[in-house]
Amino acid sequence: MLTNDQLAQWDRESFFHPSTHLGQFARGEAPQRIVTGGEGVYITDRDGNRLLDGFAGLYCVNVGYGRREVTDAIAKQAGELSYYHAYVGHGTEASITLSKMVMDRAPEGMSKVYFGLGGSDANETNIKLVWYYNNIRGLPKKKKIISRWRGYHGSGLMSGSLTGLELFHKKFDLPLDGVLHTEAPYFYRRPEADMSEGDFTKWLLAKLEELIQREDPDTIAAFIGEPVLGTGGIVPPPVGYWEGVQEILRKYDIVLIADEVVTGFGRLGTMFGSQHYGLQPDLITIAKGLTSAYAPLSGSIVGNKMWQVLMQGTDENGPIGHGWTYSAHPIGAAAGVANLKLIDDLNMVENAGKVGAYLRRAMADAVGDHPNVGEIRGEGMLCAVELTSDRSTRAGFSPVGSVAGKVVGEMVKRGVISRAMPQGDILGFAPPLCLTEGEADQIARVTAEALREVL
Amino acid sequence: MLTNDQLAQWDRESFFHPSTHLGQFARGEAPQRIVTGGEGVYITDRDGNRLLDGFAGLYCVNVGYGRREVTDAIAKQAGELSYYHAYVGHGTEASITLSKMVMDRAPEGMSKVYFGLGGSDANETNIKLVWYYNNIRGLPKKKKIISRWRGYHGSGLMSGSLTGLELFHKKFDLPLDGVLHTEAPYFYRRPEADMSEGDFTKWLLAKLEELIQREDPDTIAAFIGEPVLGTGGIVPPPVGYWEGVQEILRKYDIVLIADEVVTGFGRLGTMFGSQHYGLQPDLITIAKGLTSAYAPLSGSIVGNKMWQVLMQGTDENGPIGHGWTYSAHPIGAAAGVANLKLIDDLNMVENAGKVGAYLRRAMADAVGDHPNVGEIRGEGMLCAVELTSDRSTRAGFSPVGSVAGKVVGEMVKRGVISRAMPQGDILGFAPPLCLTEGEADQIARVTAEALREVL
Repeated sequence: MLTNDQLAQWDRESFFHPSTHLGQFARGEAPQRIVTGGEGVYITDRDGNRLLDGFAGLYCVNVGYGRREVTDAIAKQAGELSYYHAYVGHGTEASITLSKMVMDRAPEGMSKVYFGLGGSDANETNIKLVWYYNNIRGLPKKKKIISRWRGYHGSGLMSGSLTGLELFHKKFDLPLDGVLHTEAPYFYRRPEADMSEGDFTKWLLAKLEELIQREDPDTIAAFIGEPVLGTGGIVPPPVGYWEGVQEILRKYDIVLIADEVVTGFGRLGTMFGSQHYGLQPDLITIAKGLTSAYAPLSGSIVGNKMWQVLMQGTDENGPIGHGWTYSAHPIGAAAGVANLKLIDDLNMVENAGKVGAYLRRAMADAVGDHPNVGEIRGEGMLCAVELTSDRSTRAGFSPVGSVAGKVVGEMVKRGVISRAMPQGDILGFAPPLCLTEGEADQIARVTAEALREVL
Repeated sequence: MLTNDQLAQWDRESFFHPSTHLGQFARGEAPQRIVTGGEGVYITDRDGNRLLDGFAGLYCVNVGYGRREVTDAIAKQAGELSYYHAYVGHGTEASITLSKMVMDRAPEGMSKVYFGLGGSDANETNIKLVWYYNNIRGLPKKKKIISRWRGYHGSGLMSGSLTGLELFHKKFDLPLDGVLHTEAPYFYRRPEADMSEGDFTKWLLAKLEELIQREDPDTIAAFIGEPVLGTGGIVPPPVGYWEGVQEILRKYDIVLIADEVVTGFGRLGTMFGSQHYGLQPDLITIAKGLTSAYAPLSGSIVGNKMWQVLMQGTDENGPIGHGWTYSAHPIGAAAGVANLKLIDDLNMVENAGKVGAYLRRAMADAVGDHPNVGEIRGEGMLCAVELTSDRSTRAGFSPVGSVAGKVVGEMVKRGVISRAMPQGDILGFAPPLCLTEGEADQIARVTAEALREVL
């Protein structure tokens, strides 16, 4: 994949890539890929490869690549006004229209949207708002946040603390104090093999309540969770999980933050995951699907109850001391307006549900009988194939992650991008929501070929 | 400023604006402004106003508004490829080229650039890297960060903790543990009226060393500072300050983070503030001027010494667990390439130094004799007018901030945007770097008119 030219050299000399082996990359021991274009579910690179992107970038290019409706909107906005800030009541037609469109699509009970850049900063905003909320309510001790092991909520100091994956904690001194993790709702990794799904849910809920009691409910401010665990392994919750969690949170006056960075705007076959699972969150984190990644934009949707307290807070203390220079950036806002319209016009939410289910069936047909396939799971346009060295014991490989990485490598050689999820041996699929059944078949076929090659 | 139409109503109903009085805005008691376009140093709004933007958005639109060179580059990149991620060695021609351009312009001794979205997340990255660095070096106790009162480093939990302004801490439980603040290098607010500038510097350095000693040098990881205090009041450092600070940091093996979000790419009349003041930082925070805000993009420039340790870290521990989905976003990277080229082509760095000095002279001529003007200061294309109720005692107004806010309001009525800096009664000016002498005269003239109106 190496191209020994100027660009390749600059890349190794100057560019600090995220989530990369820095030593190997700088020394030229790890591959580089220079991406040049994209159309529909395909990307192309400088070496002439055309790849079916089965992960939609990082589950974000929901409408697919090369959509003129969105790129024209970006070009038009850039031509009119690339930037003005949104502080102290300033806005643009695009940012105001997008606020309205987001609120029209949000679950019931939500009030306003604050715009950021990416999911990590939106979760920072959420935690700031939760602390402010409890200070204004006269509950200064109520500040701890409960997250789940295997949750993913970003890669900053607080957002990386909320994340429950070792890779994001190790050598970074995370999690920070005041962030607690409860058990992952991950049925395949249940503590006892003979536990039923319902019993597993009861066990999870008991563990959660135990943690709250042990820490003192008066010190717990919020619970954050993705409707479906994403980067932690693409894991839908067991039956009754969200109903039970919400009952506990209400009992102890704990705010629910639904992190819908992955699930927002259609990925589960509903506009939000909250609607899919009957969540009534106080805060919703949005990013990726909001613009399909055509421009950086994230958001925190604030519920009515919290909004009333925030207004009281500024009445008592003056303007809120929170702002990013690029909050509601006009380019992102214009991309968001065009993107949400396109999702409606092309019926992509419905397609995500329909073709997503088809993809899991195709995957089951293609690799379900393979002796190293432990589980095929997902929801909407999300699919995971969990590998195991032994189906009966569900044992992992050694070292953990080595096999999934190889399979993903073999798949790329065959023209399909998938993702080795960072903890375990799990193949992840999160294609654009416009995926066709034919493209789903191709993903499943290539997965089977690669699995046969490696195992 | 109110326009009682659909857009205005959506704005109040749905949009959570940053740094805004939420209650007043939602109830329609605070003004809204819908910005529609911009050209050069001017913006226009939906109500037909044309305003000279004396603060370049939030000191970020450095090349001025409506530059076709940059907007065409955005449109072209959007048409080719709006997004692909930069994880695991992926890049685009734009992101690699920009890496190279940033490193070509950076001060000596720097190695690589990591791209983020805004200054706040870049400072999050910096703190993560500092902690990782000291863990790899086997110094796990060396983690505290020293910032300055009146420093501004962002509005997140960690970045807002580094910020040393009350507005960003109050009711948010900030600063977090492990962040310490030392004295602001703010000569006008020196502790004794008869202290010379040199004596003030000595006092600041003694205070810094005292803090380090008190906390134990083995626990102090980094010192973060803006070359010129920005949001804290636009305050250049006293003579000998940075030389002295660097000597102390070297003595105690403390990393220097130069936050050049405001000063990077020309604002001081040099490419970086580090070059202006002879700083040799280990990390440099960049944002605003990197793209002139045409698209969100920030960065952390990592010095050679730290880079060697980061490589060792990934050799020992595998890929670095840090990444934003929108790291090195193609649209931002394309905007950055075009913007940095334009800064060179139009000689804007030189113009910033020349016309910035002219602006301060014009301001001194226009308001220097006003009995409520305590100090006119700045550096490059930065200028502040500090107001006082009594020149001889340097006393503030009551309540603090009330007078500067009124002056800024009167200036807007007269067609010029300035900023009431958030702590004190300080008028701030940070126009686009392309400001002409005629436009500088207009800013000074309108400042004088508004001051006469209010005081």
